[in-house]
Amino acid sequence: MIGGGWAARFVLNGVDVRLFDPDPDAPRKVEEVLENARRAFRKLTLAPLSTEGTLTFVPTPEEAAAEADFVQESAPERADVKCGLLAAASRAAGPDVVVASSTSGLLPSRLQADMRHPERLTVGHPFNPVYLLPLVEVCGGERTAPETTARAAAVYRSLGMQPLLLRREIDGFVADRLLEALWREALWLVHDDVATAEEIDDAIRFGAGLRWAAMGTFLTYRIGGGEAGMRHFLAQFGPALKWPWSKLTDVPELTDELLDRLVAQSDAQAGGRSVRELEQLRDDCLVSVIQGLRTHRHGAGAVLDAWEKSLLDRTPEAEHDVSHPLRLHTARVLPEWIDYNGHAHESRYLQVFGDSTDALLRFVGVDAAYLANGGSYFTVETHLSHLGQAVAEDPLHVTTQLLGFDEKRLHVFHSLYRSSDDELLATAEQMLLHVDAQTGRAGPAREDLLERVGAVAEAHAGLPRPDRAGRSIGMPARR
Amino acid sequence: MIGGGWAARFVLNGVDVRLFDPDPDAPRKVEEVLENARRAFRKLTLAPLSTEGTLTFVPTPEEAAAEADFVQESAPERADVKCGLLAAASRAAGPDVVVASSTSGLLPSRLQADMRHPERLTVGHPFNPVYLLPLVEVCGGERTAPETTARAAAVYRSLGMQPLLLRREIDGFVADRLLEALWREALWLVHDDVATAEEIDDAIRFGAGLRWAAMGTFLTYRIGGGEAGMRHFLAQFGPALKWPWSKLTDVPELTDELLDRLVAQSDAQAGGRSVRELEQLRDDCLVSVIQGLRTHRHGAGAVLDAWEKSLLDRTPEAEHDVSHPLRLHTARVLPEWIDYNGHAHESRYLQVFGDSTDALLRFVGVDAAYLANGGSYFTVETHLSHLGQAVAEDPLHVTTQLLGFDEKRLHVFHSLYRSSDDELLATAEQMLLHVDAQTGRAGPAREDLLERVGAVAEAHAGLPRPDRAGRSIGMPARR
Repeated sequence: MIGGGWAARFVLNGVDVRLFDPDPDAPRKVEEVLENARRAFRKLTLAPLSTEGTLTFVPTPEEAAAEADFVQESAPERADVKCGLLAAASRAAGPDVVVASSTSGLLPSRLQADMRHPERLTVGHPFNPVYLLPLVEVCGGERTAPETTARAAAVYRSLGMQPLLLRREIDGFVADRLLEALWREALWLVHDDVATAEEIDDAIRFGAGLRWAAMGTFLTYRIGGGEAGMRHFLAQFGPALKWPWSKLTDVPELTDELLDRLVAQSDAQAGGRSVRELEQLRDDCLVSVIQGLRTHRHGAGAVLDAWEKSLLDRTPEAEHDVSHPLRLHTARVLPEWIDYNGHAHESRYLQVFGDSTDALLRFVGVDAAYLANGGSYFTVETHLSHLGQAVAEDPLHVTTQLLGFDEKRLHVFHSLYRSSDDELLATAEQMLLHVDAQTGRAGPAREDLLERVGAVAEAHAGLPRPDRAGRSIGMPARR
Repeated sequence: MIGGGWAARFVLNGVDVRLFDPDPDAPRKVEEVLENARRAFRKLTLAPLSTEGTLTFVPTPEEAAAEADFVQESAPERADVKCGLLAAASRAAGPDVVVASSTSGLLPSRLQADMRHPERLTVGHPFNPVYLLPLVEVCGGERTAPETTARAAAVYRSLGMQPLLLRREIDGFVADRLLEALWREALWLVHDDVATAEEIDDAIRFGAGLRWAAMGTFLTYRIGGGEAGMRHFLAQFGPALKWPWSKLTDVPELTDELLDRLVAQSDAQAGGRSVRELEQLRDDCLVSVIQGLRTHRHGAGAVLDAWEKSLLDRTPEAEHDVSHPLRLHTARVLPEWIDYNGHAHESRYLQVFGDSTDALLRFVGVDAAYLANGGSYFTVETHLSHLGQAVAEDPLHVTTQLLGFDEKRLHVFHSLYRSSDDELLATAEQMLLHVDAQTGRAGPAREDLLERVGAVAEAHAGLPRPDRAGRSIGMPARR
């Protein structure tokens, strides 16, 4: 699982990979991980991905390591197995090739024991799924050269990862010590029949887990301390450290020295940002995380979805006044719509306009039954004008004016506004053609539909024609 | 902090609140929390919010509780203070009004000791910020009536929260036991000078924290076990429970009985979904969470942002024959692009055209360094024509002709073909404007860029002008 995730991350970043795995099923399993990773990368970024590297399975660890620029070992968590593989790789690889181990918690000083040139051994501990989670803990052993961890960190950064360089080796490193403490506590809760696996997971994903996506516990608690500050927060919660609120009852004494250190480190972490600034950062991140989850109707996103439906339920739909451009569609700019210029990608404007056209079609009677009978409207031509920029979380609404129609055609004009300040961000003029989906040919719409379209057209006939209707693109010929 | 968060959540859901707090500064502090909450709610939802409830400060707990439909106590975590307030509220409130305590971990059986009608006491333990995080742990004491927790849960649900009903009371309940174990471990890491507060936070927010926003540890580990399943995963990690990977060294024995229980609970949680389904759900959620964080250039979102910029930077440019329309971009129609008409949604054509424009921009020298200096091209106008339909998996390529340019503008014409039969599916004419991203104003492109653009324009000057260039949308006026 971890090795396949590494292979996927390297290959999708354009690196050629040679992989040794004694499991005869490994090629199939790794290909499945790679397929998951490709799927995730397509969703993750609009940027042009590197041409995929090659993936070659080789029959020995020596063949994997020979001529490699970088070695990543990801064997099961058994010191003997890992030491053997690392030693084999160290004999086959060039003397200055970094050899990294994915170990979750074995000490690098132990892993480098049997290696040739042990100074280029480092831990590079990733998290599942390796192709998506940025964290990789980088930790050298007693004999590791400082440039080894620096070089490994640079490689990981080039793969879109976030190396965390550890200053001291310790069993479980940092992340897994934290995870392991929580996990052992969770096992006790199941053991003592206090809660089920699902309840324990819910206790995280609907609460602190949402915060942890953006901020760890220290910064969260700093904010929780409010104006009174971190020292007050720690002092206030000092007594609770002695209470049986966890099976981890061996707790450090909150001496003045430890308090001073915690406060100084918290101040450094805050970097001069006020509690108010940090609160707003936390809230902005939480809103985005929850809205991201709503896309998949999952976890906290499903809760938001249900709450919103209850709000909409309470609000009766107003009657539409057809004597003005119709206001049939609202949307919100999702974080994944944002491109490298920091605002919504142009295609997302057309997505919102397309949804507005769909809303108009439903309004005039193109419903599921109509579509099932084979009639539909296809867009044949669109003219977009961009007048302003939408950024993530912007609330949007669209007004729609019917400029004309005949048996087969609809000529519509949409205006997209940011709802918070009513700024006009974009317009779209569209020509739609009625088609028989069976034959793919243009043909007249049904009479009852044309009647409803006619009623809207009549109501809109007196509206002023939008300035940007009928535009073409051109510039003076030059050079 | 907690009480103010509750007040905000109630008020923003249309509930009138009476609040007792002996702190003379409370009105200002609560108003600040309420202002944060208003700001967050505006970002959180497009749904029409309820009219805000009123917020009134009263001088005694009795006045807060009298005539209330629901009482929520959120005093500091001291049993004597809480017991006194709850007793006072229980004497003032109607006999069947639910009285809830926000305690993080004090036992409800203890809190209800001095209450009149103790059967309506429940813990309702929320998480900071109370107005955004959905979780609330609901836990009754020995004398609590079952309908009390059910009624409290219904109130919390109406506020957009996710009540987690605990079946047994335990110090710290479920969530805070997990948080406390992690926190105590974190304090040791600082105490032992293994890592700083910031490093410990990073070890969470770049890794497991991202997963925890969507899934707890049990479901994550089920997926981590892959095809081999939860039992194999647990057995494999069984030995690690004995290793010193945490200060929590008192661990439950992984007996067959406990293993059976864990596996059964994990199966129940998975609800028949395959590992593959869960992997894709996890990945989709992670992508959305990371993209959400990118909106704020924060944490894992900042890592994604930096990686995307590096992708833009290193895309190698093949040699191109500039005497023909440039062929700079290929794509494949993804299944999720298909709309209810059975072919790619119109916005996806523009996505491919937008990617083609980006490829052209990189070709003429708009790389990450250029973008970092603040120069970029924005699309101001697009004219799309649809001539055929792309279906899922269709391979596509785009040719790009430069129709004109000046210091600030690029006038381009794209043609999108299905590569398998070279059918022309769509065209896009675009006008791009060079802007200074700092000021948002149009301005001239850099000289070296204009030189490369000029070379392409010169090479394209002799090409025939595309038939569909300069089109406008129109139909005969009618009715």
